[in-house]
Amino acid sequence: MSYRAPVEDILATMRHVAGLDALISEGLAPELADGVTEAVLEEAAKFAGDVLAPLNVVGDRVGSKLKDGTVITPPGWKEAYHAWAQGGWNALPGPEAYGGQALPTLVQSACTEMWNSAAFAFALGPLLTVGAIEALHAHGSDYLKETYLAKLVSGEWMGTMNLTEPQAGSDLNALRSKAERAGDGTYRISGQKIFITYGDHEMTDNIVHLVLARLPDAPPGTRGISLFLVPKFLVNADGSLGARNDVRCTGVEHKLGIHASPTCAMSYGDEGGAIGWLIGEENRGLACMFTMMNNARLNVAVQGVAIAERAYQQALSFAQERKQGTALDAPKGAPMSPIIVHPDIRRMLMEMRAKTQAARTLSLLLAALLDRSHRDPDEARRKAAAERAAIITPIAKAYATDIGVEVASTGVQIHGGMGYVEETGAAQHLRDARIATIYEGTNGIQAIDLVLRKLPLSNGDAVKALIGEMRGVVAQVREANTPGFGHSAARLGAAVDSLERATEWMLATMGIDQASALAGATPYLKLFALAQGGTGLAKKALALQGEDQGAAALATARFYAEHHVGEATALELAVTEGAGAVEDSAAVFAA
Amino acid sequence: MSYRAPVEDILATMRHVAGLDALISEGLAPELADGVTEAVLEEAAKFAGDVLAPLNVVGDRVGSKLKDGTVITPPGWKEAYHAWAQGGWNALPGPEAYGGQALPTLVQSACTEMWNSAAFAFALGPLLTVGAIEALHAHGSDYLKETYLAKLVSGEWMGTMNLTEPQAGSDLNALRSKAERAGDGTYRISGQKIFITYGDHEMTDNIVHLVLARLPDAPPGTRGISLFLVPKFLVNADGSLGARNDVRCTGVEHKLGIHASPTCAMSYGDEGGAIGWLIGEENRGLACMFTMMNNARLNVAVQGVAIAERAYQQALSFAQERKQGTALDAPKGAPMSPIIVHPDIRRMLMEMRAKTQAARTLSLLLAALLDRSHRDPDEARRKAAAERAAIITPIAKAYATDIGVEVASTGVQIHGGMGYVEETGAAQHLRDARIATIYEGTNGIQAIDLVLRKLPLSNGDAVKALIGEMRGVVAQVREANTPGFGHSAARLGAAVDSLERATEWMLATMGIDQASALAGATPYLKLFALAQGGTGLAKKALALQGEDQGAAALATARFYAEHHVGEATALELAVTEGAGAVEDSAAVFAA
Repeated sequence: MSYRAPVEDILATMRHVAGLDALISEGLAPELADGVTEAVLEEAAKFAGDVLAPLNVVGDRVGSKLKDGTVITPPGWKEAYHAWAQGGWNALPGPEAYGGQALPTLVQSACTEMWNSAAFAFALGPLLTVGAIEALHAHGSDYLKETYLAKLVSGEWMGTMNLTEPQAGSDLNALRSKAERAGDGTYRISGQKIFITYGDHEMTDNIVHLVLARLPDAPPGTRGISLFLVPKFLVNADGSLGARNDVRCTGVEHKLGIHASPTCAMSYGDEGGAIGWLIGEENRGLACMFTMMNNARLNVAVQGVAIAERAYQQALSFAQERKQGTALDAPKGAPMSPIIVHPDIRRMLMEMRAKTQAARTLSLLLAALLDRSHRDPDEARRKAAAERAAIITPIAKAYATDIGVEVASTGVQIHGGMGYVEETGAAQHLRDARIATIYEGTNGIQAIDLVLRKLPLSNGDAVKALIGEMRGVVAQVREANTPGFGHSAARLGAAVDSLERATEWMLATMGIDQASALAGATPYLKLFALAQGGTGLAKKALALQGEDQGAAALATARFYAEHHVGEATALELAVTEGAGAVEDSAAVFAA
Repeated sequence: MSYRAPVEDILATMRHVAGLDALISEGLAPELADGVTEAVLEEAAKFAGDVLAPLNVVGDRVGSKLKDGTVITPPGWKEAYHAWAQGGWNALPGPEAYGGQALPTLVQSACTEMWNSAAFAFALGPLLTVGAIEALHAHGSDYLKETYLAKLVSGEWMGTMNLTEPQAGSDLNALRSKAERAGDGTYRISGQKIFITYGDHEMTDNIVHLVLARLPDAPPGTRGISLFLVPKFLVNADGSLGARNDVRCTGVEHKLGIHASPTCAMSYGDEGGAIGWLIGEENRGLACMFTMMNNARLNVAVQGVAIAERAYQQALSFAQERKQGTALDAPKGAPMSPIIVHPDIRRMLMEMRAKTQAARTLSLLLAALLDRSHRDPDEARRKAAAERAAIITPIAKAYATDIGVEVASTGVQIHGGMGYVEETGAAQHLRDARIATIYEGTNGIQAIDLVLRKLPLSNGDAVKALIGEMRGVVAQVREANTPGFGHSAARLGAAVDSLERATEWMLATMGIDQASALAGATPYLKLFALAQGGTGLAKKALALQGEDQGAAALATARFYAEHHVGEATALELAVTEGAGAVEDSAAVFAA
């Protein structure tokens, strides 16, 4: 199935929900003015649809495989990667001093969505490189930056992040990889890492590994972790490649999905120690990692949107082609109709579309907030944007990846039996989508982050201000009095009320009964997402009235409000009156 | 991961929700008295856990493959099948005149759950045989019954159901396979069938295909479909196997899951026509199929429960072993705790458990209703049971299979990164579960069946009586005043109120605006399931107070009420005020 990037909806969301026009008019993103945004998106859409999308199936069927010590990516992937990098797409986010375009995160996110819709397992690799670039740019020595950044920015080399070990997944306290000072300013790294995305491959001549490890005299726990750069091939003074470093891929995981993205077990130091260079200060490795955490979580949120969009397009196309049954109003003996005439099929398609677009409002709003948090000249506004971004980050990551799975699953359902055979490709989206709720902090961890670390920002004022803005949208919907909104104002108003009460409860509870607060963290996050996503879609629909997209935007916002946002009431109760039931699980699990 | 059948909860559900004791005391199931039920379940549990469960992984990894014209099942499967049949398990449901035990459906369903938990792809084959036995027993000629039934009942031969063709999936009007009268009382069958479960294999010497096809002079549509028996090998007068019939497997689908269950493309009549025998009357094939539809849908509901139970057990075991982080109340510097100490993990485990057990109340209640509908000497009570079974059938099928997918997906989530690699087996459950929402009538079709065909039974009185019984349970919960029920009475009461209003709306709307009724069919079905499942769990918890299982049953019922049943309010609104949003999709899909 081909993929056509939804440039119209992405642009409308950038403008009317994320505030693209304000970013431009306030002078915060001058490079996006004069149609540049549109031009970039159109070009990205072409590349994604024409070059990357056709790779998705072969990527899944052939996958990446370890052969004679090197990982081989599927046919066509290396060529596509080089075409993509040469097109300048890898350099979009990179710092200008090293050849990057440093375009606003908002535009990057729009493109990232397209790459991931086209070929999720392909797009994942460069996202890791972006993380490595950020950490290196923020914390690397001049030597490291001069040696590695330009090649990472251009895409000549790719980067990886090496955190996880068998006993240290979500909890990095248990990390054991070792780093010894070599006496010449470098370090010798040894240890086993697992789940290393694109840990090895033949797409680029060199791979730049960023590795967390402990010094011999490091304090225990996460305060004793340092970050090191370990290249696959050492780099000579003239920039040419030198000796092979003491790091190798020892295995590639057999996974549910993203088969083309090699998930590697990596062994460091089997022959005495891989040569590594410290990034930032000793024992401050985790702080370096946090530098890029926000962007990484945004990017995973975007992946959730991306896979949902791809699944939606495929299901819609199938429903328009596949004939079974006849329309309710068809005359007797009429030939079979495409299944899209059936109300329950339409309901499923609208569900897929509404969830996808709601998640997109979250991801693009978050991207724009990150831009504002860096670019606004006013410190108070920068801080307000940073805090709001901090709040939205876990919500966007968890909600968008949850709906990625849900939407892909509904896509399989619409295909019926054809969805269960791998031939149609609908099942691949479900398998691919399933990783995004897990990596970059499981969605449960996102919910905990929201409740424990984000709600208290500015003493709760940051979250209250955000809820206040949702209220404003509800008032506009009510005042608009547009029949096409149906019951949207009532549903959205009730959801914002629920969110406000649940937030008060959380703020009051977390200090006195953390267990109860955490028992409700996941339903609270979903409640927040429904209110935020529902008001986001309504805001977009209001702004688009009178335009070509207006009627579809209105119908989508209405559907989301009437079929999804209503759950807010139940989620509030699960938060504020549901902790006892979780506590009572002691009677079950003790038994 | 090993599987241990939840005999305790199955028995408690049979007793306190499905009404096993009443069936016995009323003399409707005398063969289950005196501990026979318990003995059968214990033996089945042993076989499922010891013999079948270990086959699940090899079944997935090796799968069934077409080789030289014959499908080869995975190593160990043929031997396990014969041990299982020789143990008498295949004969449990069969008619006594042909060597079966004709045990009540209630007990069969309990066993079916265990086989499917142990190895879903294995258990599926015999379910198809059961369907063939039922159709043959109800509609077959004496010759066909004498020739085939005993061997199908013993399991010496297996049966298949051949309905689907490429253009005829949910809509059998489009069926094209042909049957020509041969003049000797037999027919010559030709045509292509797809998605034929266990369409070919080497586990038994013969395979008995039941095939839908059209006679040359048949009327169009489903009134022109006849059912035929087409054996893989013809059977001589003495019962020995004769010539190979003109039917073959031309391919095995590559599917998302249930890899060991061969899903075959079948070709009939490539060499002039497969010899077939009519079952029932010409052009009345669909009526014969309907004979077994109820049982088949019950069995698929049971599969949903089964895969959820297996996924729950595996996630629970993982959460008790895997150490990450420390408990909230752990002293500083404490070693890592098993992740089951974390509130969000406990919440997920309770969600898995509660959904699984709620679905089990539906499946076993349905089984008992089917028994009563056949066995009650009182015609009015038989009819009432049959109507109630008819109502619960689509609800159980759709809800149990939906939660099968949800629970398996949550199981992957609890495993974190380990859940995404195939090695742990958590992902297999998700892949396997995904078929059950699709086959035997997609869940969307179940919802339509509930609204259009089941609600009107006895002029709406059948559904109202059922809702009345739910109200009774709510009253008991309220009166019990047990603190451990938490907010259960309020949530269940609100859900039953919502169900009642939504039912009134449906009954009033379906006659005047079928499109609007169908737009709400799926949320209506889920609303029904929440009210039915929630009151079912509460009923069980009430009955078990004071027993060993009491505290766990209470906590589970409470969790379901407080964390899931609350959604009923939103679902009511999606039904009664959500049709407009589906209708407005015209603005989207026309664009």
